[in-house]
Amino acid sequence: MTVESLAFSDETVETFRDMETARAEPGSVWVRATGATPVELERVAEEFGIHHLSVEDIRNGVRPKTEEFEGYTFVLLKTAGLARGDTTFQGEIRAESVGLFVGEDWLVTLSEHDIDAVERIWRAALDGDRRILGRGADFTAYRICDGIVDSYFDVLDLIEDRIEEVEDAVITETDIETLESINSVRRELLSFRKLAWPTREAVGYLARGDPEEVRPETEKYFRDVYDHLVQLVDLTETYRDLASGARDIYLNSLSVSTNEVMKKLTVVATIVLPLTFVVGLYGMNFADSPYNMPELGWTYGYPAVMLGMLLVTVVLVVYFRQEGWL
Amino acid sequence: MTVESLAFSDETVETFRDMETARAEPGSVWVRATGATPVELERVAEEFGIHHLSVEDIRNGVRPKTEEFEGYTFVLLKTAGLARGDTTFQGEIRAESVGLFVGEDWLVTLSEHDIDAVERIWRAALDGDRRILGRGADFTAYRICDGIVDSYFDVLDLIEDRIEEVEDAVITETDIETLESINSVRRELLSFRKLAWPTREAVGYLARGDPEEVRPETEKYFRDVYDHLVQLVDLTETYRDLASGARDIYLNSLSVSTNEVMKKLTVVATIVLPLTFVVGLYGMNFADSPYNMPELGWTYGYPAVMLGMLLVTVVLVVYFRQEGWL
Amino acid sequence: MTVESLAFSDETVETFRDMETARAEPGSVWVRATGATPVELERVAEEFGIHHLSVEDIRNGVRPKTEEFEGYTFVLLKTAGLARGDTTFQGEIRAESVGLFVGEDWLVTLSEHDIDAVERIWRAALDGDRRILGRGADFTAYRICDGIVDSYFDVLDLIEDRIEEVEDAVITETDIETLESINSVRRELLSFRKLAWPTREAVGYLARGDPEEVRPETEKYFRDVYDHLVQLVDLTETYRDLASGARDIYLNSLSVSTNEVMKKLTVVATIVLPLTFVVGLYGMNFADSPYNMPELGWTYGYPAVMLGMLLVTVVLVVYFRQEGWL
Amino acid sequence: MTVESLAFSDETVETFRDMETARAEPGSVWVRATGATPVELERVAEEFGIHHLSVEDIRNGVRPKTEEFEGYTFVLLKTAGLARGDTTFQGEIRAESVGLFVGEDWLVTLSEHDIDAVERIWRAALDGDRRILGRGADFTAYRICDGIVDSYFDVLDLIEDRIEEVEDAVITETDIETLESINSVRRELLSFRKLAWPTREAVGYLARGDPEEVRPETEKYFRDVYDHLVQLVDLTETYRDLASGARDIYLNSLSVSTNEVMKKLTVVATIVLPLTFVVGLYGMNFADSPYNMPELGWTYGYPAVMLGMLLVTVVLVVYFRQEGWL
Amino acid sequence: MTVESLAFSDETVETFRDMETARAEPGSVWVRATGATPVELERVAEEFGIHHLSVEDIRNGVRPKTEEFEGYTFVLLKTAGLARGDTTFQGEIRAESVGLFVGEDWLVTLSEHDIDAVERIWRAALDGDRRILGRGADFTAYRICDGIVDSYFDVLDLIEDRIEEVEDAVITETDIETLESINSVRRELLSFRKLAWPTREAVGYLARGDPEEVRPETEKYFRDVYDHLVQLVDLTETYRDLASGARDIYLNSLSVSTNEVMKKLTVVATIVLPLTFVVGLYGMNFADSPYNMPELGWTYGYPAVMLGMLLVTVVLVVYFRQEGWL
Repeated sequence: MTVESLAFSDETVETFRDMETARAEPGSVWVRATGATPVELERVAEEFGIHHLSVEDIRNGVRPKTEEFEGYTFVLLKTAGLARGDTTFQGEIRAESVGLFVGEDWLVTLSEHDIDAVERIWRAALDGDRRILGRGADFTAYRICDGIVDSYFDVLDLIEDRIEEVEDAVITETDIETLESINSVRRELLSFRKLAWPTREAVGYLARGDPEEVRPETEKYFRDVYDHLVQLVDLTETYRDLASGARDIYLNSLSVSTNEVMKKLTVVATIVLPLTFVVGLYGMNFADSPYNMPELGWTYGYPAVMLGMLLVTVVLVVYFRQEGWL
Repeated sequence: MTVESLAFSDETVETFRDMETARAEPGSVWVRATGATPVELERVAEEFGIHHLSVEDIRNGVRPKTEEFEGYTFVLLKTAGLARGDTTFQGEIRAESVGLFVGEDWLVTLSEHDIDAVERIWRAALDGDRRILGRGADFTAYRICDGIVDSYFDVLDLIEDRIEEVEDAVITETDIETLESINSVRRELLSFRKLAWPTREAVGYLARGDPEEVRPETEKYFRDVYDHLVQLVDLTETYRDLASGARDIYLNSLSVSTNEVMKKLTVVATIVLPLTFVVGLYGMNFADSPYNMPELGWTYGYPAVMLGMLLVTVVLVVYFRQEGWL
Repeated sequence: MTVESLAFSDETVETFRDMETARAEPGSVWVRATGATPVELERVAEEFGIHHLSVEDIRNGVRPKTEEFEGYTFVLLKTAGLARGDTTFQGEIRAESVGLFVGEDWLVTLSEHDIDAVERIWRAALDGDRRILGRGADFTAYRICDGIVDSYFDVLDLIEDRIEEVEDAVITETDIETLESINSVRRELLSFRKLAWPTREAVGYLARGDPEEVRPETEKYFRDVYDHLVQLVDLTETYRDLASGARDIYLNSLSVSTNEVMKKLTVVATIVLPLTFVVGLYGMNFADSPYNMPELGWTYGYPAVMLGMLLVTVVLVVYFRQEGWL
Repeated sequence: MTVESLAFSDETVETFRDMETARAEPGSVWVRATGATPVELERVAEEFGIHHLSVEDIRNGVRPKTEEFEGYTFVLLKTAGLARGDTTFQGEIRAESVGLFVGEDWLVTLSEHDIDAVERIWRAALDGDRRILGRGADFTAYRICDGIVDSYFDVLDLIEDRIEEVEDAVITETDIETLESINSVRRELLSFRKLAWPTREAVGYLARGDPEEVRPETEKYFRDVYDHLVQLVDLTETYRDLASGARDIYLNSLSVSTNEVMKKLTVVATIVLPLTFVVGLYGMNFADSPYNMPELGWTYGYPAVMLGMLLVTVVLVVYFRQEGWL
Repeated sequence: MTVESLAFSDETVETFRDMETARAEPGSVWVRATGATPVELERVAEEFGIHHLSVEDIRNGVRPKTEEFEGYTFVLLKTAGLARGDTTFQGEIRAESVGLFVGEDWLVTLSEHDIDAVERIWRAALDGDRRILGRGADFTAYRICDGIVDSYFDVLDLIEDRIEEVEDAVITETDIETLESINSVRRELLSFRKLAWPTREAVGYLARGDPEEVRPETEKYFRDVYDHLVQLVDLTETYRDLASGARDIYLNSLSVSTNEVMKKLTVVATIVLPLTFVVGLYGMNFADSPYNMPELGWTYGYPAVMLGMLLVTVVLVVYFRQEGWL
């Protein structure tokens, strides 16, 4: 909504409504444009000789990158936030583009909405933070990069929480929702990796010190951000592996469950079916004859049969217990 | 079917039937050949010194590429369209080859059928579009590349729709058709990736500004197209992951279903089989004896047995409910 | 079996029994050795200064490659044919080695058996083909490469047919043979890829024009063959994906089948078992008493029970229909 | 907790409380800071011109790396230990960071806790070990690297033991815990690989001898450590494969078990169900008529039926035995 | 156990007990140390200026490699043998390290045990083999490399035999042992690949002719060995694919088996259960009444019911036959 300018030298810091006046001041100038109108953008671009394609890149949300232009270096970064639906995970990372144009003694930051990391550094500058004043445009750019990358760690922490939730769920609940949660976490990680990888590349380019706007003493700081990004990518891989492990266990719980259901069914059938056969046997209507089911005529025939069936049952139950089927 | 020529300078634009006359004009010339006959192609190739192998490449539909020849740079691109059968997805991308021959002050475009992106830029040129007049042959080539790559996004949108359809289907329908749809979407994505990758390479070659026909100020624009292609490849990967996730859920739905069917069978067997045993028991024909089934002689024998069976049934049903089997 | 020599210039072509005489002729010479004896090979190698390791490479059937030696470039290619057993696929590509030794003004081709592509070009040369005469040794080598690579497409066509057969089979037949066919197709594709990859590399080396025996104007033609090889590798990947998809569907058909068998079993058990219980119930032999099964004494007892059972059956059938189990 | 200094030349070795005095001595100096306070760290950093970002890297635990700074080379390594919960594996490698700052004639080692490998070399130095005295700072750094990498082998040995445990478990126990153990082993290996890979890179950098603080004669020794790391990575891959194999067998045991349960159920049902039908048959109450179940009137009816059923049972049992179902 | 020396020139070959005397002879010298004592090794190392780290590498069994030292090139190779337990495959390759130190006019070979390939070449040298005498130290080294790599093919042949055994087993036997055999074959292949890959690299280094001890005319021969190694790696991949295919078929056989068991169970249940219901029906004890089971009073009631049941059975059997369930 606004374009603000800030001139800072070794000792002093001052804000200006007007870019040109700010630039005239000794020291470096930082122009921050947040949700600026096309007209405002046009004016900023003209003042600093910024190519209109770079401005369009920020709007189109292309992947993070560093590009050298005549007179400045363009760094496109993205903030990361977890998109969350009402009740379910979305499996997506919400990303906001920020453009950093680093000139020799000027810095222009461009974004559509307020970016936390930029806002914080801006206020620190106004408060006369010693790590900004007298450090030049490239160092301020480093501070912003560092802030954005730090916020990535918060996102990964949230994802880690979700993985833990999911890891608890896989053993107890074998419904489809659990699998969907796992898939959404994996998607978030994938989506996050797609953010972290090109950012790593973009910052690595600055760390190698190729652009002349980055002074040798600032390179080391970008290398530090680069190391953080390497760590982030590593963590992402670890979490991906955790999510895969959870998925394996989930799928396996199901197989174990089916196996156990089958065992129970077999136990019931093996015990009850033969018994049913026996009672059916003594329900047959053969004519009286000494060879036809003499047991039916016995005085203790019924208790004897009952005892026999009990015995068979006990033996089978003990057997299935030992086999671990019960 | 025709070969048309167009000469354009900073201010004027004019069409000619005749290539030679057009070339004689100051400024740049654009010759567009659509479905030209071998004889016509021969004449165009001769006029601009185009190698006959390049012309054959367009006909054979080899993969997108950029090649430098003496006096011109040859860019082979492909349009993308979704092939759709009557009722089922085909799993294929319909691709049409377009050849761009970029000389210092001339551009030849070659294709077998009308290409939307080429057609549109041609008309824009005729309308005196400021972004073509006075911009030279390489910039016009960029405009065509940009148009073709933009149309790729439409294809990806269609694929996204299909993925959403498929994602809804996997939970409810566990038939083979669903798996076939998933497979066809994955094939489309694979097929699309095979288009996007070499295109990215071909455009990247132009963006790096190696061919001398591409002026430094145009490189930046090709870099922009290149970034779009990177974004496309990224999206393709994301969609592939979504399709894989859908496939996982589909396969899992089936396992869950089998597991539940087994549970139901076990419940039915566990409840009904013992009851059948009991009624069989009281169907036995033992001789009258005080030890043989005295229950049969009881006045309330039948209600007692019925009650007993009811009790067992209720207990089992409650148990299975608690276990989540019912 | 023979070593034949052929001398060709811009206008004339002539065969010689004798290499030395052929070489003395103006223009280029092509010596074709097919299944030559060690003694003959020795003589050819000596005449053209060919290293004996290259000759051994052809016999040993090492992978396709291009190697530069002093005075000539050695190109080892392989033809591809589908090995077919009596009734089943073999899953293997039959490959025959061909060695091309390209000197400045001479070409030696070496193979153990007759090679179609070589034979065809030889005859074309004898017929005074304008695309061989006056084109030099490197162009003739290109013609042979092109012929061999073209024959690769025939092999891929055959494989495509098999994939289509297999795709039809997977839905209807869930026996092990189907899986074995799929595996054999995949093996053929793997085996084919192992042929195409190094060939691509070998031809790519010629296309880049590193060997001095390849003149700049011939490079373009090798680049064309290279593009065909890239297309072949692409196709192989697509077919591999199709085969994988077929395998997925096959494995899934089986799961669907098991799921459906289970459903049928459950339906049968759920309907018949309770009915059996009911009829067992009325088979019990309780003593006459107003509380013991009064239904048995009813005039319409039997029809009532039959009706009740019919009702239960109908309700269950309708229920299972709705659930899609029947 | 302390910062200790040690000066060593070709022949003598001496400890100092005070860094400055130690540095004034001829020969090399080694300053070891273990769990030093910020103030102490500050003093060390100032004395040797160490960049504060490197110190932060050690605290933040970024991945192992080698970085060249003006006047020194910074090597960040990590020790490896297996984290073990009370009863279950944790699936994680406990890593401790150690920073080595190698100057021309000085070495600073920094860590938060006591590191075994550092401690051991320190004592060896005090004992006048010939492989430290007169060998310079880079060689001492090599000794520490070597010690840390050696301790990696102990960790891999522990993991190997676990794999063996798991391999025994997979065949006998098909519960979820076994799968969790396998997953935790795989995670440990992954986690270990993440340690070994960048360490390999970091040491490889030293082995190539790029930093000028590493003298040519010491390069060979770092190359040796590098070879050990390659061996470690190889071993990790082998163990990963073993773990995957164990997982396959586990998952398969389950399928085999389900298959066998099903076979048993089918055997029971196939034998008992027909018999139950037969005995039900002779329990029917048809009116006396020469055509209605004459068997019931036979003198030997019952023994005949029993014999028949026994025969059927024996035949079925023999059949199922042959099929391997029993 | 011994250190032997051999001096060979263009024409003569002679063995010496003493290295120094051998070296004094014109031509090249080959010192072969097999299982030498530390003292002997020390003396050899001193005589030829061999670095002690290389000697340790051989003992430690690090992966194959080529390293250049001042004055010589060190090639570490490994022989391959299949470790075979009493009754089961071990899944491991037994590897023996051999060190080749190639100087300008000397060759030292070092190993702990007798190595076949070295032994054979040694004897060939003594026999005055024309392919060793007058060929120099580098060519002799090539001969040894060639011999070792040739022995790799024997190992692969053995593995191929095992794969064939396994391929036969997967269709007939679905027990866990089969899966374990497959896994052990895959492990052997993995283990073999880990041997072949670095060997390929090591030989490739020699083939590129970087070390100055390798003369240009010998490079070609190393290139030949390199080609063999490429072929070996290719074969390994093919065998891995065969093993994977066997594993797929094994796992699938099990699913097919379970599917068929389920079908049989369902067939039995579907046929027998309804019949049991029918016979139960006519066992009910309803009071005499014209509406209660009049069938029981019919003269041909029993034959009618039997016929009806037979009919139902025949219909069901025919149906299941058609469906392929029987």
